[in-house]
Amino acid sequence: MTDSGEPTLHELGEFGMIDRLVSGRRQPAGVSVGPGDDAAVVSTPDGRIVVSTDMLVEGRHFRLDWSAPHDVGRKAIAQNAADIESMGARCSSFVVGFGAPPDTAVPRVQELSDGMWQEASALGAGIVGGDLVASPQWVVSVTALGDLGGRAPVLRSGARAGSVVAVAGELGRSAAGYLLWHRGIKGFDELRRWHLVPRPPYGQGIAAAQAGALAMTDVSDGLLADLGHIAEASGVAIDLAADALAPDVDAVSAAAAAAGVEPLALVLAGGEDHALVACFPGAVPAGWRVIGTVADGAPEVLVGGRPWTGPAGWQSFD
Amino acid sequence: MTDSGEPTLHELGEFGMIDRLVSGRRQPAGVSVGPGDDAAVVSTPDGRIVVSTDMLVEGRHFRLDWSAPHDVGRKAIAQNAADIESMGARCSSFVVGFGAPPDTAVPRVQELSDGMWQEASALGAGIVGGDLVASPQWVVSVTALGDLGGRAPVLRSGARAGSVVAVAGELGRSAAGYLLWHRGIKGFDELRRWHLVPRPPYGQGIAAAQAGALAMTDVSDGLLADLGHIAEASGVAIDLAADALAPDVDAVSAAAAAAGVEPLALVLAGGEDHALVACFPGAVPAGWRVIGTVADGAPEVLVGGRPWTGPAGWQSFD
Repeated sequence: MTDSGEPTLHELGEFGMIDRLVSGRRQPAGVSVGPGDDAAVVSTPDGRIVVSTDMLVEGRHFRLDWSAPHDVGRKAIAQNAADIESMGARCSSFVVGFGAPPDTAVPRVQELSDGMWQEASALGAGIVGGDLVASPQWVVSVTALGDLGGRAPVLRSGARAGSVVAVAGELGRSAAGYLLWHRGIKGFDELRRWHLVPRPPYGQGIAAAQAGALAMTDVSDGLLADLGHIAEASGVAIDLAADALAPDVDAVSAAAAAAGVEPLALVLAGGEDHALVACFPGAVPAGWRVIGTVADGAPEVLVGGRPWTGPAGWQSFD
Repeated sequence: MTDSGEPTLHELGEFGMIDRLVSGRRQPAGVSVGPGDDAAVVSTPDGRIVVSTDMLVEGRHFRLDWSAPHDVGRKAIAQNAADIESMGARCSSFVVGFGAPPDTAVPRVQELSDGMWQEASALGAGIVGGDLVASPQWVVSVTALGDLGGRAPVLRSGARAGSVVAVAGELGRSAAGYLLWHRGIKGFDELRRWHLVPRPPYGQGIAAAQAGALAMTDVSDGLLADLGHIAEASGVAIDLAADALAPDVDAVSAAAAAAGVEPLALVLAGGEDHALVACFPGAVPAGWRVIGTVADGAPEVLVGGRPWTGPAGWQSFD
């Protein structure tokens, strides 16, 4: 029992906890076998499955003194969902591995699960299976499955000279929020919140694919880093117009000033917003705004025709 | 650099390590998009996907002073593959989340990946994607995807009175090996090895499904515990014949004597062998041996008509 009288994972046990986590959840259509057997069975209407996985480790990808368990659950689902969206697919289901210390209070695990279900439900998806184990710190490993609806996947390698670069969703907010948390700066509640729970532009991945997007990715490592992946994979040069990023710069400029950093650096190098960025052959669909152009040339990402000399993005083993 | 002069994950970086891990791997047919994009795309010929996930945490599910990284890789794939097999499906692909300290030597990560690929290749499957993150200890999270080939999945809930219980693969070896490692008892090399790398009876899950298996699971928590899941899900009583378990008892009896435990306890309660256990309406296919019967009655698993009073199985939060 915890100091506040709550039962622990050790007391309830793996199977008791799983029973509580799956109880009362409503699986979407297409899930013919949900949790409770050795594996789940999910329909794949067009004969293909899109699959991606991300692992979040306490202290590295989230802090339990900043994030409520509900936030961690939403973030874990959201960042995986963004990978499926960025292929031009729809999320159909998730499986979740969760490790936590045996003395973890049962209600905190329930809250994590509730956050996951809230985010998955917003996508019309379900959590169809998982694993619950003992671990020295929290580890959340999510695998997302998606459905392309008969369309070709939108890869990183399809960009070509003459296309435009456009973004759906916001940039720089998560990095701004991180800095505020990290430096203990009060206020800016929405930005601080944004860091804990990203808001990918759900549905815009399919919209981009239907509009003929040539290449797409989500902004997890930072706009420059992630567009760099498209430039490398496609063998093209990308030039961003700093002016086109003004709405994002404006949104983080007060927080950036409070933290003593350049707001454009947050917008260009800040990761974890999980906006979508794509290259289109011509007009962009509603909800997307043009931020740059694609040209022949050595793979690189320029800003206003010049290399960016500020910070370049998040790396996992810094 | 490590003391022995090897580069570390921190020095090579996430993307450099991933480049090495995916380089030269040959993906099986059916993988139209492999590693290197935001998500993979895998064909699902019958319009369904079977999916299961397991997380392994260093110090809890494996020890790096017992297991080589190659063993850990094989074990992580094997135990997930067994979950797919136990649905009557074929493994098509895996995605892997891996967390490790930044000072981990690069060759050890390569060895882990090589072990995973060896085991996946034996199944005709590939590792189609993953995530590599910093973590205080090793965490390996595998999600396995499988193909039912048009068949109905074999669930835990289909057992009925009059059917027979049969097993494919071995029982008690992993638990015997664990005890030998744990107590520092030398010799019994094959059993010690068995604990590090389980040997599920690949292909027998499909064979069972084709032979009309009514219910199936893999032995991960222990024969009694896992058959208990079938008894609960199916609402039946299962009676095991201790005599039928003699080959397993014999195989572990010398090690059990050295460790001072009852060999039958290892066979009945020892988990992690990932044998398959299934209920059949009549004759069992080649490679399966009958070990018990199914009857009407309160859900329970008896041995020779009586409740087992020894240890009952592995629990995650003991």
